[in-house]
Amino acid sequence: MITRAACESLDAADPLRSFRDRFALPDGVIYLDGNSLGALPKATPARMRDVVERQWGQQLIRGWNGAGWIDAAERIGGKIGRLIGAKPGETLAADSTSINLFKVLAAALQLRPGRMKIVSEADNFPTDLYIAEGLTACLGGRHSLHAVPAAAVGESVDEDTAVVMLTHVNYRTGRRWDMGRLTALAHAHGALMLWDLAHSAGAMPLDLAGDNADFAVGCGYKYLNGGPGAPGFLYIAGRHQDLISPPLSGWFGHAAPFEFNPTYVPAPGIARGAVGTPPILGLAALESGVDLLLEPPLSELRAKSLAQTGLFMRLVEERLAMHEFEIVTPREEDARGSQVCLRHPQASPIMQALIAGGVIGDFRAPDILRFGFAPLYVGYADIWDAVDALGRIMAETAWRAPPPQACATVVPGARNS
Amino acid sequence: MITRAACESLDAADPLRSFRDRFALPDGVIYLDGNSLGALPKATPARMRDVVERQWGQQLIRGWNGAGWIDAAERIGGKIGRLIGAKPGETLAADSTSINLFKVLAAALQLRPGRMKIVSEADNFPTDLYIAEGLTACLGGRHSLHAVPAAAVGESVDEDTAVVMLTHVNYRTGRRWDMGRLTALAHAHGALMLWDLAHSAGAMPLDLAGDNADFAVGCGYKYLNGGPGAPGFLYIAGRHQDLISPPLSGWFGHAAPFEFNPTYVPAPGIARGAVGTPPILGLAALESGVDLLLEPPLSELRAKSLAQTGLFMRLVEERLAMHEFEIVTPREEDARGSQVCLRHPQASPIMQALIAGGVIGDFRAPDILRFGFAPLYVGYADIWDAVDALGRIMAETAWRAPPPQACATVVPGARNS
Repeated sequence: MITRAACESLDAADPLRSFRDRFALPDGVIYLDGNSLGALPKATPARMRDVVERQWGQQLIRGWNGAGWIDAAERIGGKIGRLIGAKPGETLAADSTSINLFKVLAAALQLRPGRMKIVSEADNFPTDLYIAEGLTACLGGRHSLHAVPAAAVGESVDEDTAVVMLTHVNYRTGRRWDMGRLTALAHAHGALMLWDLAHSAGAMPLDLAGDNADFAVGCGYKYLNGGPGAPGFLYIAGRHQDLISPPLSGWFGHAAPFEFNPTYVPAPGIARGAVGTPPILGLAALESGVDLLLEPPLSELRAKSLAQTGLFMRLVEERLAMHEFEIVTPREEDARGSQVCLRHPQASPIMQALIAGGVIGDFRAPDILRFGFAPLYVGYADIWDAVDALGRIMAETAWRAPPPQACATVVPGARNS
Repeated sequence: MITRAACESLDAADPLRSFRDRFALPDGVIYLDGNSLGALPKATPARMRDVVERQWGQQLIRGWNGAGWIDAAERIGGKIGRLIGAKPGETLAADSTSINLFKVLAAALQLRPGRMKIVSEADNFPTDLYIAEGLTACLGGRHSLHAVPAAAVGESVDEDTAVVMLTHVNYRTGRRWDMGRLTALAHAHGALMLWDLAHSAGAMPLDLAGDNADFAVGCGYKYLNGGPGAPGFLYIAGRHQDLISPPLSGWFGHAAPFEFNPTYVPAPGIARGAVGTPPILGLAALESGVDLLLEPPLSELRAKSLAQTGLFMRLVEERLAMHEFEIVTPREEDARGSQVCLRHPQASPIMQALIAGGVIGDFRAPDILRFGFAPLYVGYADIWDAVDALGRIMAETAWRAPPPQACATVVPGARNS
């Protein structure tokens, strides 16, 4: 049996241990939901005060040049690029992940005229499928989205496939695609490869350039710790950039936005991925989070993430074997991200009880308890305590026969709930 | 001659005078650029500290329900709706103005199938024209954008016109369209009316519902004082909302985003105007700015704005008549917004000198000096001082023969400058 003392020893030997003190986490909480919303870096409040009070308040419009706002999207994009293995000039911080996906999916379809299929995974994060739906309708309905089970993705890619669009780490199961293999498979059929890195960027090293990926998008508010609703990012391989006519052709993607010409001429390079005026306050918080992630070696981050997800799974097996949990996340290290998902018919009320007890994970309908391990601020003893708390909750209540009304969604609620 | 003492008397009698102290403006600066970037409300830094340190830092993921993030876009949209004469539930704070324009322009074209013309003004703010260009290309190139001189807009609207898209107050000239008249004209031809309120919202009362407008977008960082790159807003008349299939179909516009269904079902009402996860930090600053604007009667705000733009024009005539300035902004009160634009062949270096002397306006290529009057924080004596400073600059330099390299753009610079 793994003891708490053994976990404390792992913490003591953890080379990333000092990073925990760089985050402002509330007392009495074990936070295993950094894959929904990353924690607040302690450096961020001062950064926000500076951008609000000094830059905006004192520099006013002069901040665009004087405080570097005009270059923020490309500067922060470049930093994110280092986390995902992009080359300089291939990554831009901008808009939301959904909107960025619209941009790069449209770009992919432009680059493969005559090919009508978008191949994706049926269990992809829904907004990715929704965006593909909306884009194909916008383009006249000639393209079609093939959202198939994960096992069928490979065989669905054919000579009519314009683009394969996958989320690298599945939001619900934590399963991780082999980026190099899938990208090569898409290319072997002449298709382009688009990765959603929402659950990957900042949690592990990535090598988009080495894997020859064409497009990617990702999220600023999960492992990048950019704050609620932080801007997302997009990646466009350099070889494609100047061939794209952006459908969202706004002035910040124009070659000369301040000449106010009546006709759109896209900026060279990644800048044409921009649309409207960049969200400076959100970008400032995002930059603070990204700066912190640039400090640790990403290989160490990944090693700790794998050790932690592995520890959690072993503890669940050792201590919760008598309950009905099914570990959904792959045991094979290469096949998982930085989260572990447990299936249980009463997942929702169990997670409610766990959160009430100070262990924060989240629930994903219909039956998934999801636990994310952000290696910079989660400790090994935290994991022991979380499983211990889960064990106590399971022992205290007869979860097999809950009242039906206990099945409400936990966080966040439905729009009108 | 209008004396400085007379302007001081106007300040003393100004019913909005106390609002000046609600803004944190730098010493030694006369800020006449609130139509590019509004000033910082003094309440905003504390609001930002709260959302960053308490809500994000302590509530973490629980902030979505516990801190009201989940409803922020609709809540703040509703407040903006009160400034623009929308009905409850017709306005949403979201994304950038450019992206919001894409959404509502696409919606307008959906509602008028078979009509192929978008009528706009050639001197519209360029991003509006660029977005129309990008959208029509996305839709297959069957629609066409007719961007005509302002005088020809009326006669260009015909039975093939799907939508008339105009910016209510022109960014370069300050000329203001008659919203009721133009909306009625569009409707008389069966077309829809879309207003860009970037230079109107927060500077004057508007009555979108009374004028029967169909769609609108606007900017959060000008007169709404939401901070650099603040989220914009969109307005969709209630009668249209449930008929629209959003092309940017993201999960926050879904009827049940947290059920994670694979198929997009748009939310009822204005919520379907949302796309990705809302930018909570930017929305918090925007809400602070909007809350302040909800305090003064908008009729008083407009009265002061007209008095100030009128004063500025009279002072330019009285004191700068010997120079080559042409007042571009209409003298007729109903025909102007809250800015005054002066044309001068050396506009760029003159504005550079003015900014160096602490009077901040901006330059709009090729030959416009633009001065915005945000009535909540600009005083009458400020205006006298600004014209005085401009007079001294004109007297000190032979502006008719400047060196050619002095013609660079001032703020913000071109992307790579």
